[in-house]
Amino acid sequence: MASQLDQELMSTGAFSIDQLMELAGLSVAQAIYKQYPPATASSNKVLMLVGPGNNGGDGLVASRHLKIWGYDPVLYYPKKSTKNELYKNLSKQLQDLEVPEIENLEEVKSLLESPKSVKIIVDSLFGFSFKPPIREPFGELIKYLSINHSSLPDIVSVDIPSGWDVDKGPIDVDINSTMLISLTAPKPCSEHFLKEGRVHYLGGRFINQKIAQKYDIEDLVKLYKGDELIVKL
Amino acid sequence: MASQLDQELMSTGAFSIDQLMELAGLSVAQAIYKQYPPATASSNKVLMLVGPGNNGGDGLVASRHLKIWGYDPVLYYPKKSTKNELYKNLSKQLQDLEVPEIENLEEVKSLLESPKSVKIIVDSLFGFSFKPPIREPFGELIKYLSINHSSLPDIVSVDIPSGWDVDKGPIDVDINSTMLISLTAPKPCSEHFLKEGRVHYLGGRFINQKIAQKYDIEDLVKLYKGDELIVKL
Repeated sequence: MASQLDQELMSTGAFSIDQLMELAGLSVAQAIYKQYPPATASSNKVLMLVGPGNNGGDGLVASRHLKIWGYDPVLYYPKKSTKNELYKNLSKQLQDLEVPEIENLEEVKSLLESPKSVKIIVDSLFGFSFKPPIREPFGELIKYLSINHSSLPDIVSVDIPSGWDVDKGPIDVDINSTMLISLTAPKPCSEHFLKEGRVHYLGGRFINQKIAQKYDIEDLVKLYKGDELIVKL
Repeated sequence: MASQLDQELMSTGAFSIDQLMELAGLSVAQAIYKQYPPATASSNKVLMLVGPGNNGGDGLVASRHLKIWGYDPVLYYPKKSTKNELYKNLSKQLQDLEVPEIENLEEVKSLLESPKSVKIIVDSLFGFSFKPPIREPFGELIKYLSINHSSLPDIVSVDIPSGWDVDKGPIDVDINSTMLISLTAPKPCSEHFLKEGRVHYLGGRFINQKIAQKYDIEDLVKLYKGDELIVKL
């Protein structure tokens, strides 16, 4: 269903992947801004965990906007696509903004274990098309986040908590994100997300009435206000 | 200077035209939303005058966002590019949103002459690379807007009032726009724009520090607030 909607937007909907990713990543950044606004007196460091596919691409776009708005994003992007022109460009845009990058998992852990150095973690590792098994180093990363969640900063997941199944939710491990930003439409697994203290946003406000009807999200789309690109559900 | 900045963003800056146009058009729509918010009791019709090039493309993107936010855009887009895939896609996105189109200049005039039917006119005809002479039907359109401006709705110009020279300002005719949305950086001619009752916005918030320095717009870029994509100058 989720992949059908994306396919439909790009084929009959005539959107390009550059366009969709820019709007999706901007929504992610705006939801973060709303929920975790930058502060003057404490760290605005955001650890961006970037996966190899489209979910990672949304994270790259979000990193750029966050940087421009006063955050200090730090990338962990261990499996870069060398062929995909779009991801290469999005990375270059971040280099030009002097967004630093962490090269290995040990550095990620040591950053997260320094007290109060990271404001939030953004999980843009895997999206709705994820199927196990998890490749390394992502398997170890997700296990680490899952085991240590009580001592870690809040985790914000893009579209789907990484490692979850799009329909069934958590499979083996749960990274325990506290915020989820659903893109275009909430995926079925988002029903498993809502617990006390967790927040859910919807972003990616660009579908037409016919598509909203077809995917039965007309009521959700009506929740957006004014010219806002996101809405807290 | 202006074309250099655009070129630099797309070459060494590694932005795609899809990306830049999406961000530019979104800024245009948000500035319109801020200055002319949609009303419940009167017309929200926006006449979108769309030119054949990139300025027109920004107008197409803006039309889509405005439609989603509750306006009723009506397109006048007489010289469509048949080869450019991006413009074709942006047009298709508007068709899917059922944005109506006016086919000829007589219809434009008759729409504008119906009392209170149009809230504002958006001028996305020509941008910074415009050189005279003006091709038809744009010459007649600009002359019409210029002669009748006192009885017409407010005109919002994208980046440059159409028909103006990027450096010198008005050449023969002046369409008398009341609002200008400069994209990325104000063009030299914007100095001729400011008069009583006119407003000036800046949008296209995506350049890095080095580029801002090089084009001497560091102080302007600092005016943006929070996560906003536009600022009223």
